[in-house]
Amino acid sequence: RKWSSQIVEHRAFQPTIITLIVINAIIVGLESYRGLYEDYGNWFIRIDTIILTIFAFEIVLKLIAARPTTNFFKDGWNVFDFLIVASSFIFMGSPFVTVLRILRVIRVFRTISMIPSLKKIVNALIMTLPSLGTILILLSIMFYVFSVMGTFLFRDVAPEYFGTLQHTLLSLFQIITLESWASNIMRPIQEEFWWSWIYFVAFILSGVFIVLNLFVGVIVNNFEK
Amino acid sequence: RKWSSQIVEHRAFQPTIITLIVINAIIVGLESYRGLYEDYGNWFIRIDTIILTIFAFEIVLKLIAARPTTNFFKDGWNVFDFLIVASSFIFMGSPFVTVLRILRVIRVFRTISMIPSLKKIVNALIMTLPSLGTILILLSIMFYVFSVMGTFLFRDVAPEYFGTLQHTLLSLFQIITLESWASNIMRPIQEEFWWSWIYFVAFILSGVFIVLNLFVGVIVNNFEK
Amino acid sequence: RKWSSQIVEHRAFQPTIITLIVINAIIVGLESYRGLYEDYGNWFIRIDTIILTIFAFEIVLKLIAARPTTNFFKDGWNVFDFLIVASSFIFMGSPFVTVLRILRVIRVFRTISMIPSLKKIVNALIMTLPSLGTILILLSIMFYVFSVMGTFLFRDVAPEYFGTLQHTLLSLFQIITLESWASNIMRPIQEEFWWSWIYFVAFILSGVFIVLNLFVGVIVNNFEK
Amino acid sequence: RKWSSQIVEHRAFQPTIITLIVINAIIVGLESYRGLYEDYGNWFIRIDTIILTIFAFEIVLKLIAARPTTNFFKDGWNVFDFLIVASSFIFMGSPFVTVLRILRVIRVFRTISMIPSLKKIVNALIMTLPSLGTILILLSIMFYVFSVMGTFLFRDVAPEYFGTLQHTLLSLFQIITLESWASNIMRPIQEEFWWSWIYFVAFILSGVFIVLNLFVGVIVNNFEK
Ligand code: NA
Ligand code: NA
Repeated sequence: RKWSSQIVEHRAFQPTIITLIVINAIIVGLESYRGLYEDYGNWFIRIDTIILTIFAFEIVLKLIAARPTTNFFKDGWNVFDFLIVASSFIFMGSPFVTVLRILRVIRVFRTISMIPSLKKIVNALIMTLPSLGTILILLSIMFYVFSVMGTFLFRDVAPEYFGTLQHTLLSLFQIITLESWASNIMRPIQEEFWWSWIYFVAFILSGVFIVLNLFVGVIVNNFEK
Repeated sequence: RKWSSQIVEHRAFQPTIITLIVINAIIVGLESYRGLYEDYGNWFIRIDTIILTIFAFEIVLKLIAARPTTNFFKDGWNVFDFLIVASSFIFMGSPFVTVLRILRVIRVFRTISMIPSLKKIVNALIMTLPSLGTILILLSIMFYVFSVMGTFLFRDVAPEYFGTLQHTLLSLFQIITLESWASNIMRPIQEEFWWSWIYFVAFILSGVFIVLNLFVGVIVNNFEK
Repeated sequence: RKWSSQIVEHRAFQPTIITLIVINAIIVGLESYRGLYEDYGNWFIRIDTIILTIFAFEIVLKLIAARPTTNFFKDGWNVFDFLIVASSFIFMGSPFVTVLRILRVIRVFRTISMIPSLKKIVNALIMTLPSLGTILILLSIMFYVFSVMGTFLFRDVAPEYFGTLQHTLLSLFQIITLESWASNIMRPIQEEFWWSWIYFVAFILSGVFIVLNLFVGVIVNNFEK
Repeated sequence: RKWSSQIVEHRAFQPTIITLIVINAIIVGLESYRGLYEDYGNWFIRIDTIILTIFAFEIVLKLIAARPTTNFFKDGWNVFDFLIVASSFIFMGSPFVTVLRILRVIRVFRTISMIPSLKKIVNALIMTLPSLGTILILLSIMFYVFSVMGTFLFRDVAPEYFGTLQHTLLSLFQIITLESWASNIMRPIQEEFWWSWIYFVAFILSGVFIVLNLFVGVIVNNFEK
């Protein structure tokens, strides 16, 4: 244990890991170019295996260095690191190449847990979520009610947007971002049902009003800090 | 009366009603899938009738429990509950299936009146509306003036957007959400009237400025609390 | 003078004028329906002439009631009222029917000058503009520079958007509202000039940043009050 | 040196330069009209050469007037002025007409360094950027991770949007401005991969949340001043 803490707390430890994360990020980026992957794919995989092994050692060291081992898992970021590295090993050699690649990309997020100022800001961002709890529940209820209603009303006229509950939920998300809500979604439906504007205008007005209050909540929260 | 208050204030009363609302919500969601409705439609209607009956009993109990019965209607949420349940009974068995379904979906909003923290936040949201009164009147005047003007100016060139006062009002709402205002609405008109940009730019600038002040009003309101 | 002040300050004076403005608003709205105009057009014009005459008397009375007559014109709203009514008389009987109609619609804005709370809020909104002066100048410089640049760069590839300085200015306004900036404007240009994204991204980032600071300026202004 | 300071600090010095910048701006604007350029192109170039020469003298004078010459370059705006004028001379007579023109347009930005209130506001805007540092790094990490992931996942289905890392980065910028993200980008991909909505919704939710916090950062910053 003493030995492992000495490594973990060594001033060269953190910079080494950050460098490896950056190398990992660059490799994963280069890999996305098909030509490079075809020519140097094997090298990419080799470097990646080395980096992954070092990451595994890092986590093992941190696990040993933690006074009671369970302390390690009390920090959500450690759990995140552990899961990412562990699942990379589990899927290693498996035929799910896409899953492996996505895991490799997600490892870039480890930068956040390694740079304290980033970790602090992300923690702060995540911390604001619970205070938005009730308004998020309200938003969910509104989304659900409008989804069921929209599916009942428009599933025959516009099945691509309102065919099933899932379709409608996604369409409502598109509508609340105000993306083509009128030109693509409402106007074609209106040729069939002239009253359909009530549904859309009601959803946009109440949705934007609630989302605005969410925003205000975030701002107020930030000021109180 | 004493007997009814005991039930209403029983600690199992509120959770039971919330559970029923959730079951109602799930059923109404499942019903939106055509296949499920065709197979289990009768069951859905039976469960719904049971839930509706319990809701009716609940409201009757609350009505009796209220010291002077009129006190019950002093809370807007009770009026909402009463209207939703009463109109469900009125339309029951009627051929207006869509109306009945919409009523059943709207019943999901009862969650708000049953969960105190949600009720509080929605009350707060509704409370901000009166303070926005004058700016909403201003927005209405601006919408009306631009509607009449737009109808006069563009009804021949773009009847689908500016054919009648109602069409124009809806188009102005679309424009203020900035959805396809240029590509679909202004640019085709500009091929006929080059000066039409003045109308659109003036509307967007003044509209966005007023809406921005509405937002600021909501924020200021929230801070004062 | 005494006689005229008595009328102007009579408690029935303001409600009468507001009623007339509302009637004027309704008539102008009804007129926008072609069918109604063809059947009742003459009546609309007659009622309008009567209302206009009363408005003229109202302004004359207010002019007389003002201690030094020039005091009347010190209030921007009186100037607005005067110009609207005067120009309605000038164009009366002229063949510019559209101009007359627009003047009639604009008269609806008189509601603002007649209702004190509306007048106050609009005055407050207009008052915030000077404090945004320097940032508006900055925005204008940015718009001008990007307009000239865009015209030079893209006038041959996309003449409908960047043909002349005016075209480009309007397109930049469309881009800053984020309306179809990529799908309709940037992507077709990019097929010719791959580097064109630099222009668009630079404009959006700097434009949105400046506009955001404008908004913040409005908010800060409102809080200081 | 004394002589040069007297000129630089003369009360007519700054207005003269501003006038020249405005003339430069007007000429560059007129030049963007092809007809005018063909007829008066030579005049434009002559006037421009004169203005550029005066700008060069101005900078030389300011350089001499500065106590230690290096002091001149301590102000970023002087560096900007110097680079713009110097590169105009370097490209003069070169065949890169477009570069020269763009330099001439950018010279309009000198208005900012000449008008103190504008300079102050732009300095303030630039000053807010460092305080947004960590959140900008977070945004970059998020953009990078989603870019690599998007390229891996969708490069075969939608090569025009996700073909290479650069394409994806630009598409993500378009998506975060909410421009046609569903109608043009997500919906066609969804016909192939139904699960693709997870990628888009996750990106928009986290992106908008981070950008919102950036905005809040700017607002909080402004209030603290
Ligand atoms: Na949009
Ligand atoms: Na759009």
